Amino acid sequence: MLKECLENVRMKSPLVHNITNYVTVNDVANILLACGASPIMADDRNDVEDITAICGGLNINIGTLNQNTVPSMLLAGKKANELGHQVLLDPVGAGAGTFRTETALNLMREVRFDVIRGNISEIKTLARGFGRTKGVDADAADAVTEDNLSGAVTFVREMAAGLGCIIAVTGAIDLVSDGNSTYVIRNGRPEMGQITGTGCQLSGLMTAYLTANPDNRLEAAAASVCAMGLAGEIGWSHLESYEGNATYRNRIIDAIYRLDGDTLEKGARYEIRQ
Amino acid sequence: MLKECLENVRMKSPLVHNITNYVTVNDVANILLACGASPIMADDRNDVEDITAICGGLNINIGTLNQNTVPSMLLAGKKANELGHQVLLDPVGAGAGTFRTETALNLMREVRFDVIRGNISEIKTLARGFGRTKGVDADAADAVTEDNLSGAVTFVREMAAGLGCIIAVTGAIDLVSDGNSTYVIRNGRPEMGQITGTGCQLSGLMTAYLTANPDNRLEAAAASVCAMGLAGEIGWSHLESYEGNATYRNRIIDAIYRLDGDTLEKGARYEIRQ
Amino acid sequence: MLKECLENVRMKSPLVHNITNYVTVNDVANILLACGASPIMADDRNDVEDITAICGGLNINIGTLNQNTVPSMLLAGKKANELGHQVLLDPVGAGAGTFRTETALNLMREVRFDVIRGNISEIKTLARGFGRTKGVDADAADAVTEDNLSGAVTFVREMAAGLGCIIAVTGAIDLVSDGNSTYVIRNGRPEMGQITGTGCQLSGLMTAYLTANPDNRLEAAAASVCAMGLAGEIGWSHLESYEGNATYRNRIIDAIYRLDGDTLEKGARYEIRQ
Repeated sequence: MLKECLENVRMKSPLVHNITNYVTVNDVANILLACGASPIMADDRNDVEDITAICGGLNINIGTLNQNTVPSMLLAGKKANELGHQVLLDPVGAGAGTFRTETALNLMREVRFDVIRGNISEIKTLARGFGRTKGVDADAADAVTEDNLSGAVTFVREMAAGLGCIIAVTGAIDLVSDGNSTYVIRNGRPEMGQITGTGCQLSGLMTAYLTANPDNRLEAAAASVCAMGLAGEIGWSHLESYEGNATYRNRIIDAIYRLDGDTLEKGARYEIRQ
Repeated sequence: MLKECLENVRMKSPLVHNITNYVTVNDVANILLACGASPIMADDRNDVEDITAICGGLNINIGTLNQNTVPSMLLAGKKANELGHQVLLDPVGAGAGTFRTETALNLMREVRFDVIRGNISEIKTLARGFGRTKGVDADAADAVTEDNLSGAVTFVREMAAGLGCIIAVTGAIDLVSDGNSTYVIRNGRPEMGQITGTGCQLSGLMTAYLTANPDNRLEAAAASVCAMGLAGEIGWSHLESYEGNATYRNRIIDAIYRLDGDTLEKGARYEIRQ
Repeated sequence: MLKECLENVRMKSPLVHNITNYVTVNDVANILLACGASPIMADDRNDVEDITAICGGLNINIGTLNQNTVPSMLLAGKKANELGHQVLLDPVGAGAGTFRTETALNLMREVRFDVIRGNISEIKTLARGFGRTKGVDADAADAVTEDNLSGAVTFVREMAAGLGCIIAVTGAIDLVSDGNSTYVIRNGRPEMGQITGTGCQLSGLMTAYLTANPDNRLEAAAASVCAMGLAGEIGWSHLESYEGNATYRNRIIDAIYRLDGDTLEKGARYEIRQ
């Protein structure tokens, strides 16, 4: 049950280490606090192993990667693997430039990720980089829609099975698969794309959900996607006609802060495809 | 028409590469999304050329420059020049320290800027650095006021003509000149100065406006200044008596999100001096 | 009087140099503007001495320290000492990892701090690092409560006396001591801990208060703690039932923006122990 996933986060208050971009880092920290988790940010190579060691989950986001932080991501990822922590990769901008693509692929070779979360374009880039070209262009277009949904589900499920980790593709329709079952999630609003960092925030949230639900990771990942989308719906309902994306940003985090398990259970709109 | 400038941004949704400071970067990203543009942030030397190549405009802001990002600014600027992109310089803190001043001047020598936007003190520093001392001290005081307006207009116009780029000086009265015509703009509120980053946000906005209006750059730059000032007026009108600069910050971005061409046309307060 | 401390900040508008983390830097800048001060952020070794030289106070926060910024902290701290500026250390995460702990201790050896502000766990780590183990474990638990208050006051007072600087320990009950007198402050709300960076913001605010009240530093430090806590109380009173930590963050900065000396004087809840 999604409700239980949410409640475990509030009860266990998992500590999440974030190596993330400086654009949206404040919102990532606040959404982690909003859901009941605790964030720590550290990205220096001298610091990341110690910090990750005291956490339960690690969120690696390459949104403003640089020469100093890439080695830190590798060190932290390996240490987190050693300790059996939940590790998430958010390959921001993979496909937009060689450095980002290569870094994401290299991280995937060196670190065992529990979940990779990105938009369809980023995930397709990673699939291609791993030689998983089947389905990339034919079945998964640049946006997942009702029309191409069946092909997209197959693509995501096969990629998850091939890589042995959860793949979460977020967009108008969200897909979360562990290679067997695939959650098809229809929460959220298009205006969420007009806020910087809703994807980064979801990656933080998802890491917290996995960390608090290590034995139920697929459902935990799906629950975090439903929670984020539902918060987008609730947040929008409180906007005044003169308010825009800046206030909306706060309203979404506020909605995560107030969200309880029953509301999540009732508001989640998803189906599970096998 | 200013209206057309705004509508071109919404229609073309220009992609803007920002190498900017970590203090105000989130607000810069959100204001770019609010106006209809798309932001990308990237500042590593291995990343910036690829990223700038997929964009239409480049916004360079030296607010928290460092040894790693200065070379990235040069690389990105040169690549953007090669590709004919719109390039803006925001020389934050030029004059406050040697590293900032020298970096700004060096960028001006190595990169062809379409527009330089700063406060009067920063712009005077750059003028001096280029040996354009005439008018710097005599005519342009530390703030542009109705009393020294005529001298300030001459200073800005001559600097723009000498450098062959648009100069935008923002403050209580804003001046935007291409060396021929000079917009004198009186939108905005003094309380905007009590928010961190309204200048940085304007630089992002201005880059988007230029990128979407490459054949009408002076008017586009002026339109972005009017839009920002007008958003400051609209945002203030929605503040409760207990709200302050943090909420005001959001209200301004919200107002940019809601702003349409007619409202801009009607609310803009400017004159053009030849 | 606390009132006078606040009014001096508004009147003198001190310029504060911040070398701080990229998680909460925007809020630190906005709270400094809210209280009437002016923030400058600079963290490159080529930049920090020039920037600190034009300021009156320096706020060093190690929240996202790295190999490049640690030398900058040392350079800026020494220059600020030379110039007689107010210097604050916020040892974020000291005790959570060797790099943070060692950096904080090294800064304390190389730079003369006017005030060190942290939570009880960070301050205890620094006390241990300086061989001041007496009282660390016995008297000061992981949270200052009414039950262990007397021991905690002794610990903080003796540490302040030993180091010759003001020690500010913030939590449910805040303690501010110069080694003689100790302010015991009971403003604030527990929900402030669900916002990222209220501690960082207080460090910025405290630096501004000290800079504007150099001859009355203990009271200035205490006044900033009361102001922050009171802003937390006022901000909470304006929250709607659907609002959470993101909006609360803005409301606190807004409350600092609107706070006047009389309200502070009336709302401050403290006692002074000798």
